[in-house]
Amino acid sequence: MSGASSAGAQENHAKLPKGFRASGTTCGIKVSGKSDLSLFVSDCDASGAGVFTQNRVCGAPVTVSKSRVPGSELRGVIVNSGNSNACTGDPGLADARKMTAAVASELSCDAEQILICSTGVIGVPLPMDCILRGIPHAVSQLCSESQSFMAAATAMMTTDTFAKLCHVDVQLAGGTVRVAGVAKGAAMIAPNMATMLSVIMTDARLTPEQCDWVLRYAVDRTFNCISVDGHTSTSDTVLLLANGASGVDAQTDDESNQIRDAVMNVCQALSTSIIRDAEGCSHFVTIDVTGLSSRDQAFRMARSIADSPLVKTAIAGADPNWGRIVSAAGYAGVPFEPSWVTLKINGTEVYRAGVPVVFKAAELSASMRENRDVHIEFSVAGGPSSGMERARFWTSDLTCEYVRLNSEYTT
Amino acid sequence: MSGASSAGAQENHAKLPKGFRASGTTCGIKVSGKSDLSLFVSDCDASGAGVFTQNRVCGAPVTVSKSRVPGSELRGVIVNSGNSNACTGDPGLADARKMTAAVASELSCDAEQILICSTGVIGVPLPMDCILRGIPHAVSQLCSESQSFMAAATAMMTTDTFAKLCHVDVQLAGGTVRVAGVAKGAAMIAPNMATMLSVIMTDARLTPEQCDWVLRYAVDRTFNCISVDGHTSTSDTVLLLANGASGVDAQTDDESNQIRDAVMNVCQALSTSIIRDAEGCSHFVTIDVTGLSSRDQAFRMARSIADSPLVKTAIAGADPNWGRIVSAAGYAGVPFEPSWVTLKINGTEVYRAGVPVVFKAAELSASMRENRDVHIEFSVAGGPSSGMERARFWTSDLTCEYVRLNSEYTT
Repeated sequence: MSGASSAGAQENHAKLPKGFRASGTTCGIKVSGKSDLSLFVSDCDASGAGVFTQNRVCGAPVTVSKSRVPGSELRGVIVNSGNSNACTGDPGLADARKMTAAVASELSCDAEQILICSTGVIGVPLPMDCILRGIPHAVSQLCSESQSFMAAATAMMTTDTFAKLCHVDVQLAGGTVRVAGVAKGAAMIAPNMATMLSVIMTDARLTPEQCDWVLRYAVDRTFNCISVDGHTSTSDTVLLLANGASGVDAQTDDESNQIRDAVMNVCQALSTSIIRDAEGCSHFVTIDVTGLSSRDQAFRMARSIADSPLVKTAIAGADPNWGRIVSAAGYAGVPFEPSWVTLKINGTEVYRAGVPVVFKAAELSASMRENRDVHIEFSVAGGPSSGMERARFWTSDLTCEYVRLNSEYTT
Repeated sequence: MSGASSAGAQENHAKLPKGFRASGTTCGIKVSGKSDLSLFVSDCDASGAGVFTQNRVCGAPVTVSKSRVPGSELRGVIVNSGNSNACTGDPGLADARKMTAAVASELSCDAEQILICSTGVIGVPLPMDCILRGIPHAVSQLCSESQSFMAAATAMMTTDTFAKLCHVDVQLAGGTVRVAGVAKGAAMIAPNMATMLSVIMTDARLTPEQCDWVLRYAVDRTFNCISVDGHTSTSDTVLLLANGASGVDAQTDDESNQIRDAVMNVCQALSTSIIRDAEGCSHFVTIDVTGLSSRDQAFRMARSIADSPLVKTAIAGADPNWGRIVSAAGYAGVPFEPSWVTLKINGTEVYRAGVPVVFKAAELSASMRENRDVHIEFSVAGGPSSGMERARFWTSDLTCEYVRLNSEYTT
């Protein structure tokens, strides 16, 4: 990631791509008085694509944004935090459309050129008065500087403890292209929050179809590979805008892949920073599953391990409990034999060819206690029908703090 | 359940069906010195069927028992607790076969006529010396009295806090038929335990094919409808033996259904008692999903609600958090529109036709705090493609105590 500012750092100097401006302001949705309105605007028409929650119950902003991508004349994204405008029926849909119309009116474009995301409490009508009053001010604050990018990332936060933003520069033959992104999410862990949102921007020139393909490729390998509690929210949205303001085109397949990988790297930095910020979590867990004949099989197995509360509690307790990991892989619905399996935890082999390996349990446990990062490597490469496919998944552990935070009476 | 002894009671006078004897003895597998060897024996050949864990990684006893059912000449089941004989490779398989051969030798029958279940720690070789020494003693203690049935149920326990056994008598035209059963399981909650086992016995006359069909029907609606943490163990087994010792046949379809329902009622009493005994749980949750066009859809939706850590923590906190329930149903992969939904918690309507209902939240929360039992009714009957199918699922809540119990260092 050349020139990347790492997401998660307290100091963050992530920069916007050319032709993009951002603002983060306060319109009064949050009782706390914290900033709650973010704008991301392209000065010229941009191609755009989106990936949205698969939940049958989705927020009004998801319905509205979904109907506008892929698109070739997009101008911006409005995001509010503090209220997800989900489970609000037809009035909620009308409110979401009104918000995009208000931004469009300030930018002298059409409402259909503006996308929208909302995050926060479910089932409560938006306070439209203060939002509509706040939009002209938000537009007046739009700026291309790092500080405004940071302010916009901050105004998206709900229970996040740090703003999540980064950029990557890619050197192509024709010049430099930048990909930048923001995300919010402490991973469906906060009471009633509808959680994960991300906006990715690039000054590379991409068609709407290219945007769509690049974004799906990236999200499949990043945002779709994280889990805190397996609960898919009603608002999850990742948007990509490409405005071509760099004047640089990909001239070869290799250069196209470089842009795609830059988008993926930005998505990976943002999605893993969501796991690092998962409230109540004491470990950041990377799960690598290898040796399958399809990526989908590897993915399902990795997710099955990641979602097991017994694996997650064992990790919280620094317990190298390989039986739970092997059995979680065993119910993923993927055919394999135990005799094909090799399992390593933090580099130590604990299970091989269907039988336990003798290992220094106290030492391994100490390494799990002392390091926030835990690495699980699960290989089924030892079988006759093993393959070359792999998947990587990121998750948090399961602690009393998670239960405490999510048991508090909030309705 | 005429004549049923309720599972879960401290006093339990459940009775064995005719022609069955049982024993519960101590052979020395458990360091605690508690009883650890159970035998269930039919005096004559019995039809038998089994339903086993879907986990790709299964214990040796599962492999052995699976190869012997459905069968028409079965004589008994040996169960040990304290060691699951799972992840033990070929030596484990040989040990499981040796155990059945040792029982068969005492009963003067073939090893293939004996089924086997093991529960306890994973990945440790069985202490075969003490088991083989214990089997003749276990056989010598076989008895048809309630006390022996209780002893057998007790010797299966690992982290269970009470023995789980019951019986149901069914009056048919030709006489009385009895169905009795035992189960163990505190629901994959105990460190490294491979968990749920159940043996059902009846003196009704059933063919192996009837046993198989009746057992699958019952398990689909009971043991497959419970979940504590969604983690499928490596040893889960439910066995049914029917020895015909009552001399009573079902003479009509209606009588066949009465026997099937008696097996289902025994399975339901045993499976719900597992949820009531889930360690660390503070609520027993019944989830009814109705209005679907197939039972499978209703089942998937109910399980999605039951498995959501956010729903489970909300219930632990007595929080009538309908947003989490609706959104968990929304990602079950079942097509529906929010506008079709009605949701009740403990009889109070909280969500209807896609929008929240005004309800007395404090009152409803109090009812959740004061009652151990919580009832969730999720109906999608309000849509044009709604159907008449339904599913019921039982689960526990998610508490700090669960996390504490499962985070303790145990490997």
